[in-house]
Parts: sequence; structure tokens; C-alpha cells
Amino acid sequence: MLGARRLLGALRLCSSVSCPRPRATAKLRVRDALGVQDASGECVTVQGWIRSVRSQKEVLFLHVNDGSSLESLQVVADSSFDSRELAFGSSVQVQGQLVKSQSKRQNVELKAEKIEVVGTCEAKAFPIKYKERHPLEYLRQYPHLRCRTNALGSILRVRSEATAAIHSYFKDNGFMHIHTPVLTSNDCEGAGELFQVEPSSKIKVPEENFFDVPAFLTVSGQLHLEVMSGAFTQVFTFGPTFRAENSQSRRHLAEFYMVEAEVSFVESLQDLMQVMEGLFKATTEMVLSHCPEDVELCHQFIASGQKDRLEHMLKNNFLIISYAEAIEILKQASQNFTFTPKWGVDLQTEHEKYLVRHCGNIPVFVINYPSELKPFYMRENEDDPQNTVAAVDLLVPGVGELFGGSLREERYHVLEQRLARSGLTKAYQWYLDLRKFGSVPHGGFGMGFERYLQLLS
Amino acid sequence: MLGARRLLGALRLCSSVSCPRPRATAKLRVRDALGVQDASGECVTVQGWIRSVRSQKEVLFLHVNDGSSLESLQVVADSSFDSRELAFGSSVQVQGQLVKSQSKRQNVELKAEKIEVVGTCEAKAFPIKYKERHPLEYLRQYPHLRCRTNALGSILRVRSEATAAIHSYFKDNGFMHIHTPVLTSNDCEGAGELFQVEPSSKIKVPEENFFDVPAFLTVSGQLHLEVMSGAFTQVFTFGPTFRAENSQSRRHLAEFYMVEAEVSFVESLQDLMQVMEGLFKATTEMVLSHCPEDVELCHQFIASGQKDRLEHMLKNNFLIISYAEAIEILKQASQNFTFTPKWGVDLQTEHEKYLVRHCGNIPVFVINYPSELKPFYMRENEDDPQNTVAAVDLLVPGVGELFGGSLREERYHVLEQRLARSGLTKAYQWYLDLRKFGSVPHGGFGMGFERYLQLLS
Repeated sequence: MLGARRLLGALRLCSSVSCPRPRATAKLRVRDALGVQDASGECVTVQGWIRSVRSQKEVLFLHVNDGSSLESLQVVADSSFDSRELAFGSSVQVQGQLVKSQSKRQNVELKAEKIEVVGTCEAKAFPIKYKERHPLEYLRQYPHLRCRTNALGSILRVRSEATAAIHSYFKDNGFMHIHTPVLTSNDCEGAGELFQVEPSSKIKVPEENFFDVPAFLTVSGQLHLEVMSGAFTQVFTFGPTFRAENSQSRRHLAEFYMVEAEVSFVESLQDLMQVMEGLFKATTEMVLSHCPEDVELCHQFIASGQKDRLEHMLKNNFLIISYAEAIEILKQASQNFTFTPKWGVDLQTEHEKYLVRHCGNIPVFVINYPSELKPFYMRENEDDPQNTVAAVDLLVPGVGELFGGSLREERYHVLEQRLARSGLTKAYQWYLDLRKFGSVPHGGFGMGFERYLQLLS
Repeated sequence: MLGARRLLGALRLCSSVSCPRPRATAKLRVRDALGVQDASGECVTVQGWIRSVRSQKEVLFLHVNDGSSLESLQVVADSSFDSRELAFGSSVQVQGQLVKSQSKRQNVELKAEKIEVVGTCEAKAFPIKYKERHPLEYLRQYPHLRCRTNALGSILRVRSEATAAIHSYFKDNGFMHIHTPVLTSNDCEGAGELFQVEPSSKIKVPEENFFDVPAFLTVSGQLHLEVMSGAFTQVFTFGPTFRAENSQSRRHLAEFYMVEAEVSFVESLQDLMQVMEGLFKATTEMVLSHCPEDVELCHQFIASGQKDRLEHMLKNNFLIISYAEAIEILKQASQNFTFTPKWGVDLQTEHEKYLVRHCGNIPVFVINYPSELKPFYMRENEDDPQNTVAAVDLLVPGVGELFGGSLREERYHVLEQRLARSGLTKAYQWYLDLRKFGSVPHGGFGMGFERYLQLLS
């Protein structure tokens, strides 16, 4: 946006309607050109790829796109500019005057004075065809070209915008950013399957390993974040995590992005849920306001009516139910589940989806799970005989679990006993240490970024 | 900052000097408390860890730090609050009135009305000692606790601030953020040693590999970014990269962070150098203005006089010399080099440092390297018999090479010939494809983030 403002300042310098030559023109992104209000013949240069060509008797219409927005800029040129090289997929540089458009379909258009074809595009060989909507399976064959389609372009712009929004949310709320290590020797929950890492070189150093201990790819930065929250109070990380799950769509699960945060001095799960709800709403609002047409395109093609559903979520306070209540709701459901819901059994996707529908398609926090379902570090609620821990999952419409988090056991003796019961005392001595020196009640959560994007679109 | 403003709004609600009880107090980060101008008895709660205790006859002074800034908040309490538990390293919650400090050493202080020890700290067992400056080698034994020292705290705050500044620079300048894959099957330059990745599970699927092709950890996102720059014009990524170099300090080189950018429609190296210089200056200015005391601490302990050197770099335009000129300068140097400088040989660290000093300790771009020193994708300058490519390295004082970049060969036939000469035609067919469909002159660069941080501090 700053960029646009600076460029518009530059534009003022050459805003006479007929530009003398030679002259300097301002380079403008398509997004910024489209945003110019009351265009009155500013001299600009736009660069991009041709998305459509329409040749009339005396006039030539081009649509030029540079990826800065879904919408292309309409270029109007004298038909004398027409040439075989001005074709779908070619890259061009167009110089001309930005004027108010006659048509209602766009605000401004570019009256071309000079069109230069930068790179031609052979239509026959180009796998992306003019005006065709290619199925995603087809595009998967062309990972190097598919980002030039509207659909993939929108998905990637939404991803970029959401990334920026997440960084902003945390920065504005006093969280410090931490790069948690990708190569690690601990496996966090002992839950996910790990990837091991070795140098690929055949000439290995004899009788020596590259790493002193086996190295794995991280499955979560949580433990590292806990260390940091003991010094910086509020911390977050946003990076790749890896699970070697052998599922059907395994190639997609192998690498995914996670947003993780850890907060010290929390009083209850309520404090954590506030951050989760705040992050979700702020990020979603920013994406919806910064690239509404991209979100709409996804909805139009992939999930119609989704925009209303998102706005419904933003308008309402998220709900909170306990695991015990969730099980009761599921037991009383008229629906037949593949997995019978009962106390002590984890919620399945079918259960999660039912619960969200039952709650009026508003995201719902499920809290206080049975201890035996959760890892050792979650804080015990001391509610015998139920024996639950202060865990929280956020279930959202269409996706199921989006966030998972908990208070962490900050009491030295309680954690010590739990580690001993699991035979983990030695490996987690350092973790126990954190509870010895100025321990504080704290908790954190993780959000699967790809799941979040799935929900958005 | 937004957070602070909101909190100060809340403060106004309870700004009477003597607060009636019970009452709501605003939770304030130490950084925000320290930033309050004209404090006049606002009721606040501050949480953090005790950094120092000074007990006088009638008054007790505590310094409380929550990691939001290097500086701690001074808490002044009646000596009746004194207890053995109020010790270095303990975590506390202090409620009281924020008042103008009598001392010149700080702007505000907190007149305590209630002090709660949240977690005690056993001084004897705590490896970090009060008022001691521990060497970094000592702290390396305590990776889970060292972030509670001033030195590590400052380093991590600078890192967090620089990360935010880099994201801001690119966003403000119309770059789209891309998550380039960490698991990949290509090795980009064929330069760095790779890490290979395999599931660690012993129960492997018989006669089947997890991945269809061998999977490595990325050494650079460049090729992926080039794909994206063909759709979005200006793109960047900022994430972990990996090199299995078997050097002495190998554990540190294994995983590092890189900022990489790719720009379409560039006219010359000049366009790229502008982005590099802009990124360097904007980021450095933001870090220096947002956490000056952290930068200063690093300089004080690690590299004195560095702040002046940084400001010298910010004030001056970076210089540009060609590789040919660099070799001439080195040949005429009075210094004896371990590696004799001559045309066709890569610049060594000793050469880089000499060149920077020769240029008055201003960062200097070295451009147009001999083709045989550089990878196949760099654009040929067509300057026989020199036969150089449009490569650029930015050398900076104290560090040597900070950025490396180039124009990429966008001409189909030139690239085709180079690939054929290297026997890479088959593997890089997709890369050649990018030059067939609307090819554009483009280029990009990478900056080693840890090296940048090294320069800062």
C-alpha cells in the first residue's frame, strides 16, 4: 500500500493529459492501477501476462495480469497494434494513459501508446488454454505453470495474505517471534511418526556420525516455545513441521505449516481461548478485506455459500463445552456414528462435525479431556474420579479440529510423578528444570495452517 | 504498540491516585509500563521474573523483567513485603500504582500494593547467577535456561524484530510471500551437500519407498521462486535451509535461515541491487529504532563501535565494482594474501574483507563474475572473450558476502545450450519450459539471515 501511495505521488508529476515525449512514466502494479480513483490520463507503464485478447475492427482489447490481483487491467489499443505475438500467455510491457473506463465492468483502463511483447507464448504447446477452466488434477501435471491460472493464483494470494495477517496479529499483541529448530533430537509428543535426517554424501566421515545424536525433522515446536515463554512471556512460531504418517494422501501430510503460540502467566484455559479466537477472527477479517475477490473465487468454484458461513463465525462468540458435555450430546444424537461415542474415547471427525452442527455452525471449544487421552505435559485438573486435563480443541465447521492446545503442567512435583509413570524422567530432566526456577502457569496451542486455509476457501 | 495504546486506554478508567478496592487493574507488559509518559498513579498489574532485589531499612527495590524489553521495571515496596521467596529468578505478580520515578535512572516505577510469588527459584541450583556475566560457552550447557540472560534475550529480541522488519519491507513493496517446500527432490545449484530424509519407523512398507523419488532438505528455494515470479512478478520466501557441509563448526551450518526474493521484468542488475540495498537499510533502520538498547548491549559486549559502523553504512550509497575491477584492486594491494588473486578464481574471505576496507567500510556490490565460477542459470553477459555472467554479491564489513544473486538466463536458446553442455537438459525440462511461455527478464537473490544478524551485533 505504501508502494501504491509513493507511485501515485510520482504520477502527479506527469499528469498532463497528452504526455510530451520523451518522458518518464511510473511503473504501476496492476493492483495499484486498478485502485486509482478518478484516473485522468496519468502516464504509466504496466507489465504482465496477457490473459485475453479481443480484436475488433478498430480497437484491440487486452487483459493484462501481473499476479498482484485476481482482476486484470483492461488495455485499449488501436487495432494497428494487433499482431500474432499478442496472444494469451505472452508477457508484455504496455505504456499509456490511465483513464476512466467507459464500461461498467471496470473502473479504469489503460489507453495504450506503446506495447512491447517481452516474451511470446506458443499457444499450442502451452498446457493452460485460453478461457478453459482446468480441473485441479489436470493442473497437477504442471506444477511449474499452474500458478498462472486464476484458481491457483487466488489460493496462493490468500495464503500469502493469511501469513502476513498472522504475523501482524502476534506482533500487535506483544508476542515475540521465535524460529524453533527444524532439525531436532526430540519428538515432542511421541505421537507422530518421525523423519530421520542423514547427509546424503556417500563419502561419510569414518567412525563418526554427522550429528552427535540421531536427528529428526520437527513435529512441533512446542517444547522449544515453552523454554522461550519462560523468558519472553508471550511467544509464537510459524513454520514447517513434518509427520511421516503413512496415510492414503501421505505426500500431502508429510510437510505442513503450523502456527504455535505459548503464553505465560495464564489463569485458566479462558486466557488461551481468547488468543485462539482473537487470532482466528483477526486473520480471517484481514484476509476477507484484503483479497475478497480471491476468497470469493475459491468459494464460487469450490464451496458456495462459504462466505456467509465465515461471516456467521466472525459475528458470533465461539462456544465452550466440556468433553463430558460433548459425549452426552453425541450419546443423545439421533445420528448413527461409525464409532460409538463414550467417555474415555477420542472424538472422531464424524463426532466433531456433528458437534459443530449441533452448536449452530459456530466454532466450539471442547475442553477438559480425560487424562489418558493426552500427553504427559498437560495440566491435571484434579477432579477425581474424572481425572481430566486442561486441554482444549477448537472445532470449526467443515474442517473439524483446527486448534489444539492445553495448559501445561507447571507444578514440579505433579510433573515429576507423571514423567516417572511414563519412564521419561531422564529424557525430560531439562523440562522438569523449567519448573524449578521461577515456574509460571502457562499454556499454548497449535493451529494447522493448511486446515485454516481449507476453512477459508 | 497497538497493544500498548489499548492498555493505556484501559488505564484511564482507573487513574484516581488512591484506588478503591476491590478494583480491576490493567495488566501491562514491562515494555509498555516503561513507555508510559507522565505516570500518575495508574493501577496496573505486572508479571515477570525478578532480576534483582535490593533491601533497605524501610524500602525494598525489585527489578522485574518479562522479556518484552532489556530494561526491567523497578518495583518499590514497603520492607514488610520482604521474604526469602522474593529472590533472583522467582516469578512474581505485582499490583500497584505506576508513578514517576524519583531517580534519573528510570522514567517510571511501580509502587507495590500486592506482591505475589508465582514460582520460587532455588538460587543454589540455578545455573544463572545474580549479577554475573556468564561466558557464552558456559551458557551453551543450559539451552533451556540461557534465554533468561540479558545477552541471549537481546539476541533473540533482535532476531524477532529483524524477522518482522523483513516481512514488512516485502509487504510494503508489493512482494508476495511464498512458502517454498522444505522437502524437495532437486538440489538447486548442485553446490551444497544435501541431507536425505527417510521415515524413521522400523516397520517400513515392503517394496515401497515413502517418497516416489529420493527426498532431500532444501538448500535454496530459488527455483521454486522463479516459478512463482512467472505468475506474481515479485515474490519472496523466508525460511530454513540446510547444508550438510562437513566444516569445523558444522552443527551451526546444518540449519540456517535464508531470505530469498525473485523479481520479474528487471532491466538490469541495478534493479536487483536496489531491492537488496532497500531491504538491508529498511530492516536495519527498523531494528535500530525498535530495540536500540538490545543492539547496544550486543555491541557493548561483543563488538564495540559497531553502531557507528552501521550508521555509516545506512548513510551512504552502497558501491558497485565489477569482478574485473575487484581483481585489479586485489592485485595492487600491499597486503599478502594466502590465496593469490587472479582472474577466474573465486574471491576468498580475505579478499572480500580487503575489498570492503578498500571501499571505506561501505557495503560494496561486486558484479559480473566469470561464467565458469557460477551455476548454469545465471544470465550470460555476451562479453567475449571475458565471458561473464550477470551475478552480484554484496560484501559487507566484518562479515564478507551477505547477499548473493543474479539475473537468470531467460532466453530459451541460450539456456538450452547451457543445459545441454552440463548434461542437465532432461532434469531441467520444466525449467526450460518457463522460458517458452511468456518468458521475462528476471533475477533474484538470497541473504543469509544469521550472517545478517552477525553484522547487526
